[in-house]
Amino acid sequence: MSESDSQPLEGTTVGIFLAPAGSEEIEFTDPKAAVADAGATVDVLGSETGEAQTVNNDLEWSDSYDVEKAFTEVAANDYGALIVPGGAVGADTLRTDENGVELLRQHLEDGKPAGVICHGPWALIEAGVVDGRTLTSYHSLQTDVRNAGGEWVDEEVVVDDGLVTSRNPDDLEAFCETIVDEFAAASE
Amino acid sequence: MSESDSQPLEGTTVGIFLAPAGSEEIEFTDPKAAVADAGATVDVLGSETGEAQTVNNDLEWSDSYDVEKAFTEVAANDYGALIVPGGAVGADTLRTDENGVELLRQHLEDGKPAGVICHGPWALIEAGVVDGRTLTSYHSLQTDVRNAGGEWVDEEVVVDDGLVTSRNPDDLEAFCETIVDEFAAASE
Repeated sequence: MSESDSQPLEGTTVGIFLAPAGSEEIEFTDPKAAVADAGATVDVLGSETGEAQTVNNDLEWSDSYDVEKAFTEVAANDYGALIVPGGAVGADTLRTDENGVELLRQHLEDGKPAGVICHGPWALIEAGVVDGRTLTSYHSLQTDVRNAGGEWVDEEVVVDDGLVTSRNPDDLEAFCETIVDEFAAASE
Repeated sequence: MSESDSQPLEGTTVGIFLAPAGSEEIEFTDPKAAVADAGATVDVLGSETGEAQTVNNDLEWSDSYDVEKAFTEVAANDYGALIVPGGAVGADTLRTDENGVELLRQHLEDGKPAGVICHGPWALIEAGVVDGRTLTSYHSLQTDVRNAGGEWVDEEVVVDDGLVTSRNPDDLEAFCETIVDEFAAASE
């Protein structure tokens, strides 16, 4: 394998959150594929193992995917990076799982990178890790982000000390490129 | 008509918000019926007139209802009371309508009563009227409410100076009784 074909996330395990219902499908599948294509091992994490039905555009049911490990079965030490997708209902549900929120909080407190998109940043607010950070999100969350002490900016992708955020599915190309870069940089 | 049959909201015009899609059906229909049964004239208000499809339990499509007046066509002076239903996606959308949020802000600033349930309080946060108030909401919003300066409490119905809030559809009986009482008290 030549250097240009090297796998930047070889040896990195990435956890990607998936709500029991209502995560935005493409915000789950695209980042998952991007880090897997870059060589990462990926675990799908959720409140409980089993089928989780995703949506398109917040309200149209789409395909189901398998939650492979429950938040209660894993620890922050198990992952080099985490990803949190949006979908209004899915993200609203994920923020209510104390174990998922604590995993994210500990992970970021340990200085490790994460990619959080669209309505996903509600979990960051819940984890209490927004204060003093610059980030973006779906535009409806900007007041919540500011009230949590964050600086909200309207850009397709924002990086703040390993925390990668984007606004919506239209930003996925930039989001996926940036999480691979940031996750790789952190694993060097 | 005897005094016991009198209509406590006779002469009161109530505006009830409805998102273009994703408002929780029963949180729209039950309060609407309660104030209408109490004698109120009710206007259904939204971003634009026409059909709006509601949901059950956030993600199951239900019936469509007619938005009768756009937020741009009305003023706070037109209403004695306002109601904002939940539904995660509907409430997430309503908070992004500047005209709807401004109507709610002006209404509450004028000291008039409102009933806001479930995910509806995001519109209160957006309107900047939560600071210093005691309220409840769907449990997922409690951190957003606290970060906005509100005191969040876990009760089926909370009244703070005419602002009536409840947590979820299970609270609708208490919510509907209380909004009728508060709207009537304010119209005396």
